[in-house]
Amino acid sequence: MENPLLKNTSLFSDIDANLLKQFSDVAIIHKYKKGQTIYCEGDSAQFFFIIKSGWVKIFHQTLGGEEAVTDILTTSHIFGENAVFENFIYSHSAEAVEDCEILALPLSLLQTAINNNHKIAVNMLGAMSYHRKKQEKEIEHLTIQTAPQRIGCFLLRLIPKGKTKNIVINLPYDKTLIASRLGMKPETLSRAIKSLTEKTGIKITGARVDIASIESLSEFSCSACSSSYPCEDIT
Amino acid sequence: MENPLLKNTSLFSDIDANLLKQFSDVAIIHKYKKGQTIYCEGDSAQFFFIIKSGWVKIFHQTLGGEEAVTDILTTSHIFGENAVFENFIYSHSAEAVEDCEILALPLSLLQTAINNNHKIAVNMLGAMSYHRKKQEKEIEHLTIQTAPQRIGCFLLRLIPKGKTKNIVINLPYDKTLIASRLGMKPETLSRAIKSLTEKTGIKITGARVDIASIESLSEFSCSACSSSYPCEDIT
Repeated sequence: MENPLLKNTSLFSDIDANLLKQFSDVAIIHKYKKGQTIYCEGDSAQFFFIIKSGWVKIFHQTLGGEEAVTDILTTSHIFGENAVFENFIYSHSAEAVEDCEILALPLSLLQTAINNNHKIAVNMLGAMSYHRKKQEKEIEHLTIQTAPQRIGCFLLRLIPKGKTKNIVINLPYDKTLIASRLGMKPETLSRAIKSLTEKTGIKITGARVDIASIESLSEFSCSACSSSYPCEDIT
Repeated sequence: MENPLLKNTSLFSDIDANLLKQFSDVAIIHKYKKGQTIYCEGDSAQFFFIIKSGWVKIFHQTLGGEEAVTDILTTSHIFGENAVFENFIYSHSAEAVEDCEILALPLSLLQTAINNNHKIAVNMLGAMSYHRKKQEKEIEHLTIQTAPQRIGCFLLRLIPKGKTKNIVINLPYDKTLIASRLGMKPETLSRAIKSLTEKTGIKITGARVDIASIESLSEFSCSACSSSYPCEDIT
């Protein structure tokens, strides 16, 4: 049976119905509990994954035991697929940040499809190009933005499209993880939130964020970025 | 005539001789002076480039006027090619860091080749996967490593393979650019170099770097990284 999650993933966009069916037929839904490991860097890789629900942390563990979080993904994001170019070895670790439902698909099938189906190779190029742009923006932010500006940028991306006034949003995951995601220590995050609220007039109470006006927040954060708000290139 | 620079670029590895000839026939060598702009972010893109000699800086200019250097490339590196997935608009700026010789090739030919030649699409996937891994490592370093550790890591990558003792290397470009490349202010670089030399026993005099033993340097830097020295995955 055709899987709607697959069909809506850019990797499978407009591919031959037979090929889509091959993937759908072998896709298995896995449930992961909060904190559960999906795979570790260096593990032999048999599957790639598409998130149905929940949040997944992509990270590296340093030799000194610290964690470097390089991405946090949610519904319809794909991960683990690049192992197909890495001799079927995962090049990072993945862990469920909360209870998750995740579709697992065989990497060997993806490899065969890439080698034999031009459309899927071209789709994958598009997906990788998008990922490259996202990473480049990430490097730009880590290089140039201050900690309060990075938090402001993170919040701006959570605002629903078209909203400009009296905005209330909820932080998607806990502050320790937000700190890791933004490449800062939890204590830096606390200090930076204090500075951000003073400079832009936003309020953060627990997980609730009140943004009276988007302008001061975007002026503050986007001055240290090459894209102006709303930056539609990257979600 | 066949161009050896093209033939040795992974994008063109093992492709059909006729297709390689098509690229060779239209390749033009451009000379750029130190500091000369090759293209600007947002420019309409007609060409992609392969470096024959010299160093090229890839960067973004923030709305506030600062520069975020995301990469510095040299001989045989390819750049500007991802504009083929970005509606033929360059998504970053490129500038010659010193006098350069650079091969320019039409992006339209690359687009046609990707759409019609499976081998070149697969080659491009391999190149993009490598780039993704490199960027992911960059994000990891910016997130976890201290400024002295980042400089140590930068130096370790300059050491010729197999060398372990009494190493003398030269910094490839000036310290202001090294600071930008590593995402730090020039004054942070100076302080961090002082700390690095004290902690690892290396000596930096002008552009000359003396590394008596690789061990203390790699222990110091690689403890805050998920790869151990020598990290052969990324050059």
